[in-house]
Amino acid sequence: MSVSTDAVAHLLLNRFGPTSVLLGEDVRERPVSKQIVSGCEALALLRPADTQELASMVRFCVEHELPMVPRAGMTGLVGGTVTSPDEVSLSLERMNRVVSVDRDAQTAVVQAGTPLQAIHEAVQAHGMQFPLDLGARGSATIGGMLSTNAGGNKVLRYGMTRDLVLGLEVVLPDGQIMNSMYRLLKNNTGLDLKQLYIGTEGTLGIITQAVLRLFPSTDDRHAALCAFESFDAMVQMLNLMRAHAGPALSSYEVMWNAYYALVTQPGRLRAPLSRDYPLYALIECEYPAQGRSAQNGERFAQTLQTAMEQGLVIDAVIAQSESERGALWRLRDEVHYIRTLSPIYTFDVSLPIGQMQAYLRSLRSELRARWPDAVFIVYGHVGDGNLHLAISCGGKEDDHTIEQLVYEPLAAIGGSVSAEHGIGLYKKPYLQFSRNPVELAVMRSVKAALDPKNLMNPGKIL
Amino acid sequence: MSVSTDAVAHLLLNRFGPTSVLLGEDVRERPVSKQIVSGCEALALLRPADTQELASMVRFCVEHELPMVPRAGMTGLVGGTVTSPDEVSLSLERMNRVVSVDRDAQTAVVQAGTPLQAIHEAVQAHGMQFPLDLGARGSATIGGMLSTNAGGNKVLRYGMTRDLVLGLEVVLPDGQIMNSMYRLLKNNTGLDLKQLYIGTEGTLGIITQAVLRLFPSTDDRHAALCAFESFDAMVQMLNLMRAHAGPALSSYEVMWNAYYALVTQPGRLRAPLSRDYPLYALIECEYPAQGRSAQNGERFAQTLQTAMEQGLVIDAVIAQSESERGALWRLRDEVHYIRTLSPIYTFDVSLPIGQMQAYLRSLRSELRARWPDAVFIVYGHVGDGNLHLAISCGGKEDDHTIEQLVYEPLAAIGGSVSAEHGIGLYKKPYLQFSRNPVELAVMRSVKAALDPKNLMNPGKIL
Repeated sequence: MSVSTDAVAHLLLNRFGPTSVLLGEDVRERPVSKQIVSGCEALALLRPADTQELASMVRFCVEHELPMVPRAGMTGLVGGTVTSPDEVSLSLERMNRVVSVDRDAQTAVVQAGTPLQAIHEAVQAHGMQFPLDLGARGSATIGGMLSTNAGGNKVLRYGMTRDLVLGLEVVLPDGQIMNSMYRLLKNNTGLDLKQLYIGTEGTLGIITQAVLRLFPSTDDRHAALCAFESFDAMVQMLNLMRAHAGPALSSYEVMWNAYYALVTQPGRLRAPLSRDYPLYALIECEYPAQGRSAQNGERFAQTLQTAMEQGLVIDAVIAQSESERGALWRLRDEVHYIRTLSPIYTFDVSLPIGQMQAYLRSLRSELRARWPDAVFIVYGHVGDGNLHLAISCGGKEDDHTIEQLVYEPLAAIGGSVSAEHGIGLYKKPYLQFSRNPVELAVMRSVKAALDPKNLMNPGKIL
Repeated sequence: MSVSTDAVAHLLLNRFGPTSVLLGEDVRERPVSKQIVSGCEALALLRPADTQELASMVRFCVEHELPMVPRAGMTGLVGGTVTSPDEVSLSLERMNRVVSVDRDAQTAVVQAGTPLQAIHEAVQAHGMQFPLDLGARGSATIGGMLSTNAGGNKVLRYGMTRDLVLGLEVVLPDGQIMNSMYRLLKNNTGLDLKQLYIGTEGTLGIITQAVLRLFPSTDDRHAALCAFESFDAMVQMLNLMRAHAGPALSSYEVMWNAYYALVTQPGRLRAPLSRDYPLYALIECEYPAQGRSAQNGERFAQTLQTAMEQGLVIDAVIAQSESERGALWRLRDEVHYIRTLSPIYTFDVSLPIGQMQAYLRSLRSELRARWPDAVFIVYGHVGDGNLHLAISCGGKEDDHTIEQLVYEPLAAIGGSVSAEHGIGLYKKPYLQFSRNPVELAVMRSVKAALDPKNLMNPGKIL
């Protein structure tokens, strides 16, 4: 730390006090990213008490030309929160309240540092649900999820984070507070400003509060695990489910054989269906709380029956209890078994469903051509066009070679190098495969216009 | 027309030919806006054959510093297409094809000049629906609806136009073509660029193509007209419907007494319920095509029965056939009877449901204080927080006085001066009531960055 950097850190401490400003060891014991649990190298870690204090901090940073890097629940996978020693890390961990829940308007007002699970619990107490959900719910905060436009398990029915937000409060790169805390489903009054800040990973400003959309809570869910002979049959089944269940279809999670066989190895999870089928789908429907569970269950079973009669589904098991439903979901959720194949390379891509089979075939043969023993694991939210890939070549390989193999073919088929996780630092080299030069130029224009000094999470995404 | 303006018009004609460039009388016979059916005063009206030609035209206009004003189906209500004699009017009327429909991916690719109804018909032929719908479907084009983020009758379930678009192609203000024609539900690769162009009324670029989201078509709809003693009962019924029907609830259209009484006057529409109740709601649920209509109808009726037993609904009629359902919808759709009160002032506002009653009461008493015989008609998409107001003071009044009365109170309650219609020219003076100075400054920065010469629909919105 140079003398002047040290001096500015102490200016921060004097100005905002030791509760709001951490320095030295207190910073270094903090995580760098999800993977690196300590050793944060920021000049200071700022923990504002409220939006006003954050705004003052941002103005201080602008005055001293300090780059600012927001951090949240540290569950991100693309290095969006990584700081260098001359950057300030901004954490909204003290702004972690559910401010209000309005049942008639179906909205909740929350501070950005609130963990997702705390939001779930607060709205549940009002008979409502906030349908965004993912495994990291205990740590991930809504601010982080807003900044990355997180997805999760029910996108098929409820959409991404972006679709579940009505209003935002944002501290802009010059320290002004933009209050766009609207609680309106319809508001056609010029540019939809919240869209600038959702999914841009803190590069245009810092989200401090949000108005979230709520839905009536329900515990009437019906789930089944189905097996398929072919990719085509699996897609036809998706269409059948859409036609029969409509918006009740909340998850359509597909597991290719290698994934299913891995998580059901002896000593791991019990296999409810034979481990020899090419493809499996975990299908779940969610019905209104005041529906009739038995009738819904009967409809669900009849749809599966129809699918078996049509030859689409070759084997199936329906969860008969919440504990059986939980067991089916563990097959999909316990992705940590993939780590037993270390070293392993994991990916989160999306592509049109019509292109999936050719893409996977070609990628598989490319991998096998280079590494005959390569393990290629595929699973994901096929209803959303989103695949998670895990590749093991048997040893440590050059990251870039494998990433290039996975990402490059996406350009020609309109796929995305990041379905859910964002770009951050780690996917920057591959953004070119998903965004063309004209698009990148528009993004750069917006960034330059809204953050002319380039102090907001500089070097991330672009 | 000055000599130089005349010269540049003829340069356009020579460059792009008479099919693509209209001048003089051919322009003047075109409408100015929805209300003014002829007399367009543009320097030229350009009708590009395709995106490439449009891009060339835009580059020509930039070179000659000609402001460009896009026009579409001319059904807009805020003057967004009004041109002055030194501006060029751009019409995508020749780019009017449904390019493709993909049932597995649930997407359609359409050119921006395609009328909504043509899209409905094309996707229906594939067993799909595009759920955006509104009365002007025969004239309104998807390009115009994208540029205004149109709403309509099923927002409660399917969202606004913005929610139904996956990808766009846009001609930028410098004539570059931005291809963002993604067919992905999930694509977290930096700024969501399409959001810049949807709802900004052609001020940042011209949308030329779009990828739309489709849903399985259905004809299993159940509708009822319900009467309420009070606003509170009507809101409780909305919550009951949400809990019982979940996402099947597709419309919750409320009519206050003055509206219902007006459209059911003798010689107009038949009143299916007494004309004396304070409030009515047209409630419709839409079920999956492969549902079971009789069972769904029974559920729907039982929910209404529950509501009557709880005293929420004091009278109700359920449509027993498609023709009865059509008759109920005519009560809501035949808003033209409002025009019999000419002169009449109409509004499209949105506000949180918890604020509606106080807002309407206060506005009614303000109106009556000024004009004791004022007629105040209210109806709208209450499930979306969207009210349409129609006010007659008995004679011609100063527009500004009435608009100020309607719009000013929205500022304090986080309401919107435009729920569905946009800002254009006519609502510009009132944008300040829905957007604060910080928000307006962000909008201006984006406009300046993306259209630095201010040639794209200048003077609209901002």
